Amino acid sequence: MQKKIILTGYGTVAKELIKLIIHNEALIKEKYGFDLLVTGIVGSKGMIYEEKGIKLSSLIDFGTGSEALSRYSEYFKLPFTEPIFQGDVLIECTPTNIETGEPALGYIQKSMENGMDIVSVSKGALVKSFDKIKTQAAKHGSRLKYSGATAAALPTLDIGEYSLAGCTITRIEGILNGTSNFILASMSENNLSLEEALKIAQEKGIAEANPALDVQGFDTACKILLLANGFFGSSLLIDDVKIKGIEQVTKEDIQEAKQNGRTLKLLASAYKEAENVIVEVKPCELESEHPLAHVNGTNKGVVFETIEMGAVCAIGGASHPRGAAAAALKDVINLYRETT
Amino acid sequence: MQKKIILTGYGTVAKELIKLIIHNEALIKEKYGFDLLVTGIVGSKGMIYEEKGIKLSSLIDFGTGSEALSRYSEYFKLPFTEPIFQGDVLIECTPTNIETGEPALGYIQKSMENGMDIVSVSKGALVKSFDKIKTQAAKHGSRLKYSGATAAALPTLDIGEYSLAGCTITRIEGILNGTSNFILASMSENNLSLEEALKIAQEKGIAEANPALDVQGFDTACKILLLANGFFGSSLLIDDVKIKGIEQVTKEDIQEAKQNGRTLKLLASAYKEAENVIVEVKPCELESEHPLAHVNGTNKGVVFETIEMGAVCAIGGASHPRGAAAAALKDVINLYRETT
Repeated sequence: MQKKIILTGYGTVAKELIKLIIHNEALIKEKYGFDLLVTGIVGSKGMIYEEKGIKLSSLIDFGTGSEALSRYSEYFKLPFTEPIFQGDVLIECTPTNIETGEPALGYIQKSMENGMDIVSVSKGALVKSFDKIKTQAAKHGSRLKYSGATAAALPTLDIGEYSLAGCTITRIEGILNGTSNFILASMSENNLSLEEALKIAQEKGIAEANPALDVQGFDTACKILLLANGFFGSSLLIDDVKIKGIEQVTKEDIQEAKQNGRTLKLLASAYKEAENVIVEVKPCELESEHPLAHVNGTNKGVVFETIEMGAVCAIGGASHPRGAAAAALKDVINLYRETT
Repeated sequence: MQKKIILTGYGTVAKELIKLIIHNEALIKEKYGFDLLVTGIVGSKGMIYEEKGIKLSSLIDFGTGSEALSRYSEYFKLPFTEPIFQGDVLIECTPTNIETGEPALGYIQKSMENGMDIVSVSKGALVKSFDKIKTQAAKHGSRLKYSGATAAALPTLDIGEYSLAGCTITRIEGILNGTSNFILASMSENNLSLEEALKIAQEKGIAEANPALDVQGFDTACKILLLANGFFGSSLLIDDVKIKGIEQVTKEDIQEAKQNGRTLKLLASAYKEAENVIVEVKPCELESEHPLAHVNGTNKGVVFETIEMGAVCAIGGASHPRGAAAAALKDVINLYRETT
């Protein structure tokens, strides 16, 4: 069995994904019973498409981004085409755009219209139009996975879908943004101000030059929103999430929590109150016994509270493009594996 | 679609499982697309078998154990029969017998000969004859799941199989026995001796009157052995595991670890060394940063180290018969679900 992949976006995560496919394809064939064939990659200048499969090892040698696609196009005399969405699965890796969800939303819709399954790493389209995407997926028989968009290497969707299959989830809590967690942990460990800790995070490449999405809690909000809509069946939008980031957190707040034996974390939570689903993000002092109190560095964590199994927590998934790529590849495997 | 279940053993976990099926069957049908039908239950006096399904609500009213099966048999004038292994899945819930693996092993073999899938809660047969069971499963096309035998409500097998699908696992570490973890945590928190902490655990019903399997590390060893054989493809037996329990741990050991900012835990580990798989269980001092250092009470935890996703850790699954039952039900759902 062969599964044809269309990849949209060719940034660092997509390149890591290509490397993982090259490295692991024999293992995947042997263990899960199917072959992976990347037939098309869409970059900002157009698509490279080869029915018999892109030559991945050559592509890797051409560098990263649209530049690499251009070099591939020139070298193999393969002109860029308009995006073609034909194959088994779209892996959506374009940069997250929270305002419009584009170009991801258009790519996802066209792929679903052709009956393709979707593995999304980018969050924008899902956050913006989750309901619409779910409805269209049902209409076209497309299946949808988005581990890469919900904390990547930290298992969140899998825990809820597989490990808690049949259980009633009553509450989800998470530390879902590695950058803001690093900043808070660094403030606490080294008695730093937010500005000082942010500067270190930027120097280490953990925070971006414009850290607003992370520090203001917006990235965290997108992830908890996707988990809430996924597990509580809600159709909430980002405006429905009460968001307070860490930008107001002071050295004193951190030290006060510490003196009380607690840790200050940017906590996301989702739960049902009567018939409503409440989703919020805010800095919280966690007791030392809280399962997320010791999530340090750029790690992330999630806790599912259930009626049947009590609280089940996962921790890990330190931010790294390879982890996000591995999360996307895992989703592809779980869509097509022949073994349970 | 209807899935016929044969249940062997009718202790507390099996009774909780029946309760969960009663409570959740409509939800399972709606969400996962199949009906559950318990057609037979094997107790120590024989089997009650009803082709059209055991009346579960009545059974629950008759109490627990073989006594309940006898009352059901009398009330419905349904004589005990010899065990019949026909249906879709065997859920094996007899008490774990590490010496011979029986009666579980015989039940599992007969079920596989009839092409049934296996969900095992008991550990004995798997620990004793994992290789034989895997070989026979392959021969008869049976699928095998055993979340209930590998820390139950704590996801261990699922994390490795689904959340880390396609990843290379290099090491597994775990705190896999709630009783010994409770004892160590209690010694640390309240400055108690092992005997004092054990007594409290027994009074709370956390430790059994004969706590040897837990305290001597044997239960932990069985679980890590199953994980090692499952994920590293080894065929190790319990005698291949280096086991040191907590029976020699003193108040002083605990306090010394504490003074060094560490925590003493009964740690199971499995890893490859050259071509060999090493599996061991021993008390270890964990640094405060170790992901399992803060697993307290009767909780359990597992860490998978991978090349692609770094370390992924799960914590939870506090010991409770309902948790073990929910783990078995989850396995059944993951075998037959129509949705990924």
